[in-house]
Amino acid sequence: MSKFKVDINCDMGESFGVYNLGMDEEIIKYISSANIACGFHAGDPAVMDKTVKMAAENDVKVGAHPSFKDLVGFGRRKIDLEPEEVRQIMIYQIGALKAFAESHGLKLQHVKPHGALNNMASTDKDLALAIAKAIKEVDDELIFVALGGSAMYNAAKEVGIKAASEVFADRAYNLDGTLVSRKYEGAVIEDPAEVKNRVLRMVKEGEVETINGEILEVKADTVCVHGDNPAAIDLVSELTSSMEKNNVDIKAMREII
Amino acid sequence: MSKFKVDINCDMGESFGVYNLGMDEEIIKYISSANIACGFHAGDPAVMDKTVKMAAENDVKVGAHPSFKDLVGFGRRKIDLEPEEVRQIMIYQIGALKAFAESHGLKLQHVKPHGALNNMASTDKDLALAIAKAIKEVDDELIFVALGGSAMYNAAKEVGIKAASEVFADRAYNLDGTLVSRKYEGAVIEDPAEVKNRVLRMVKEGEVETINGEILEVKADTVCVHGDNPAAIDLVSELTSSMEKNNVDIKAMREII
Amino acid sequence: MSKFKVDINCDMGESFGVYNLGMDEEIIKYISSANIACGFHAGDPAVMDKTVKMAAENDVKVGAHPSFKDLVGFGRRKIDLEPEEVRQIMIYQIGALKAFAESHGLKLQHVKPHGALNNMASTDKDLALAIAKAIKEVDDELIFVALGGSAMYNAAKEVGIKAASEVFADRAYNLDGTLVSRKYEGAVIEDPAEVKNRVLRMVKEGEVETINGEILEVKADTVCVHGDNPAAIDLVSELTSSMEKNNVDIKAMREII
Amino acid sequence: MSKFKVDINCDMGESFGVYNLGMDEEIIKYISSANIACGFHAGDPAVMDKTVKMAAENDVKVGAHPSFKDLVGFGRRKIDLEPEEVRQIMIYQIGALKAFAESHGLKLQHVKPHGALNNMASTDKDLALAIAKAIKEVDDELIFVALGGSAMYNAAKEVGIKAASEVFADRAYNLDGTLVSRKYEGAVIEDPAEVKNRVLRMVKEGEVETINGEILEVKADTVCVHGDNPAAIDLVSELTSSMEKNNVDIKAMREII
Repeated sequence: MSKFKVDINCDMGESFGVYNLGMDEEIIKYISSANIACGFHAGDPAVMDKTVKMAAENDVKVGAHPSFKDLVGFGRRKIDLEPEEVRQIMIYQIGALKAFAESHGLKLQHVKPHGALNNMASTDKDLALAIAKAIKEVDDELIFVALGGSAMYNAAKEVGIKAASEVFADRAYNLDGTLVSRKYEGAVIEDPAEVKNRVLRMVKEGEVETINGEILEVKADTVCVHGDNPAAIDLVSELTSSMEKNNVDIKAMREII
Repeated sequence: MSKFKVDINCDMGESFGVYNLGMDEEIIKYISSANIACGFHAGDPAVMDKTVKMAAENDVKVGAHPSFKDLVGFGRRKIDLEPEEVRQIMIYQIGALKAFAESHGLKLQHVKPHGALNNMASTDKDLALAIAKAIKEVDDELIFVALGGSAMYNAAKEVGIKAASEVFADRAYNLDGTLVSRKYEGAVIEDPAEVKNRVLRMVKEGEVETINGEILEVKADTVCVHGDNPAAIDLVSELTSSMEKNNVDIKAMREII
Repeated sequence: MSKFKVDINCDMGESFGVYNLGMDEEIIKYISSANIACGFHAGDPAVMDKTVKMAAENDVKVGAHPSFKDLVGFGRRKIDLEPEEVRQIMIYQIGALKAFAESHGLKLQHVKPHGALNNMASTDKDLALAIAKAIKEVDDELIFVALGGSAMYNAAKEVGIKAASEVFADRAYNLDGTLVSRKYEGAVIEDPAEVKNRVLRMVKEGEVETINGEILEVKADTVCVHGDNPAAIDLVSELTSSMEKNNVDIKAMREII
Repeated sequence: MSKFKVDINCDMGESFGVYNLGMDEEIIKYISSANIACGFHAGDPAVMDKTVKMAAENDVKVGAHPSFKDLVGFGRRKIDLEPEEVRQIMIYQIGALKAFAESHGLKLQHVKPHGALNNMASTDKDLALAIAKAIKEVDDELIFVALGGSAMYNAAKEVGIKAASEVFADRAYNLDGTLVSRKYEGAVIEDPAEVKNRVLRMVKEGEVETINGEILEVKADTVCVHGDNPAAIDLVSELTSSMEKNNVDIKAMREII
């Protein structure tokens, strides 16, 4: 009898016009929640429509994956916006994706900021609060997906919306709960067996070993995976099989939080 | 005792970044419905937020004013999109504005396409249907504002959503109900007295004199006015005073249709 | 002893930000002239810089491949611009690419409009003249690459700049010299042997068989090829081998016209 | 007999599409060098064309006013780009404006970065060098307009291109030569008499009084003025009259440096 459950989320809908990115049609089979780009760092109305439709057909819940308006930089560049401006670009993007969700008979489940905005708002309280307020203003039942313990996670609590504590399948942790920067060796965990063991430990025991060998408590509501390339797809496929064998149910975060 | 009522709509929120356009703070006092740009031909998230807030404070109902993605051309250039692409850009823009409306506690009331898209979809059935479907998919209580008798007006009926028949205060009509192109002399009516008389006749008698002197039947659910310049503001101010004196109540279209 | 020579041109630099498109590093080995996207339908300053550098390293001449400003539609949508507006967007884009060429010690060789603009200006004299004037204004030694006999080809002659008559390796022709629309069967020629024979006949005999079996005279200054996929690369590789064996020298158009 | 000369520069061409900004047609009468927006923070190909034409008609020299790609933020937001990316967006924009200059028979005279990029590169050596290299690569006779003593000014010297030391007519200085931030009282000097006296002192005596009353040496090759509003126009008009009466010739920077 299964006692554990966790959501698996993945960024999707990051194609644009004639440009294809990601193996959305493969990864969709293994995940429970899709973070869908909203046209600012990637995605366009046609891609959003198609991606939401694919999620509906695969019984995957949809969320907005908003970002800075920076297509050429894929939302990875820091841009110095006022919190009020961040609130406004969040409302715009969440609203746009929510309309596609509803046009396909789905309820928008969550919001997960992308790239540089996610990084900045993980430590900047004002930006984090701006995002939390935007989410609440659009729909106060939306779940704010944020790194556990981050400024964003705390902002969700502060404004009174639900938060999903996100863990990363293939990333090393610092003792303060932040991710080890990709600049450093060991930041990305590539061994599939290790990835599986770490995820199971995070989900079932609520802890992870940091890059320095300490034990860090984590709350694993949702696990972030990637679907960029065949190896990533294989890894996620193995990860989900492993979960099923180990009494961990994969459930959309809406059913967990 | 007043027997007549009509809505007055005006395009708003067409500023962008540092660029100001329109006298929104003046015209808002005289209208009942605001068509708010959605960032594709004009407007940006900050302008949308501010404009919706201003409408809320002035008890003016809000609608989306979506268009082709053409900021530099202000949405006035024909772009050759597939109907499916039009449907998708409509959902995107309507959704974005709907989120701002709801964040300010308002219900989005209507959708009125802008510029070249409005012109094209007034006669192109496929584009008109694409827009009507998009509106219905986002929220089937939204009102589609369209020139009476146009392909858009008919498309609203066909897909089963409400339509508001729009008349123009200061534009001459052809016998088929289309507007006389601005290229021709007499296309724009500039005499305030004539504008007032024409509007009152359209609202109260359901007819207007065409550019060639024939009588054309029109249904005046909502009157389109402009707020670009001081003379336009004065004209609308006089028009609304005239209505009040002539037993025509100005009501948001939601209360009429 | 070789009596014949022809240029081979290919569109390049159509990646954007994180999005990759085309096998530029493969196709560059087989061509003599590169048409480089200028940021309006594809390409960005980083891609332009890298592509021009690659052309310089491979001794391939560079040209501008300007288009409508339509990234999401890849420049394939008709947009209704005034000729004067087309002239202005041409100057902008040609100037931008010319600066990259000169920063790498190259002289900009040619201009070939992209997509919908190319199609429209092939038959619209006013657009064709607007492009020709823009080219002349930026640098009157630039070569205007255009379908032989098209409005663009004639416009080059009219304003007094050089024109390169372009033929297509894998496309069927109508008797009036236009290309058969891709909507029709037989529009694209897929048999490598047939492609080779057609190109050799166009180059050496100045004629091609139309889709209906008539003989059409053509002037083959430059042959358009594609580098989108491995099969296309193979085809071009075979085509260039075939030319070398058949006494046709591949030379940049600057050395031909 | 006049012994002194100085250039007067002003930002221009910052309109966009239907949006008008600045009183370009008024201010053009009083200046010797125009910094013309290149479409990234403001301006579009039509505005660039028209503005260059106006400069040509008024015998005003033209320069490029490139910036971050940030239309909605008017280039005033810091964006975290790599120096190499800055070099590339500079080449693109300078090239685009250079083509308009040459299409009107003008030689591009100078480059002055805009807004946040100007601020950042005034103190960031890597960004400053990236800009200087871009300028040199496009045309090594271009003049780099930079705050005297800034990282940009020094970078021009380092890469071996000309630099014009810019002073500000209406801004207070810190002792290190930087401008007092607009956040502080006294940052902007509004008294016309004081503005005139400060400019004359900077030009003729090479010094200015800082906000704390110390004397700062400055080299005044070019004075930055504004043309946003009628008061600004009047101020510049008075300033230029004052110069003529005080033996200061207004000359384009090309004739000074």
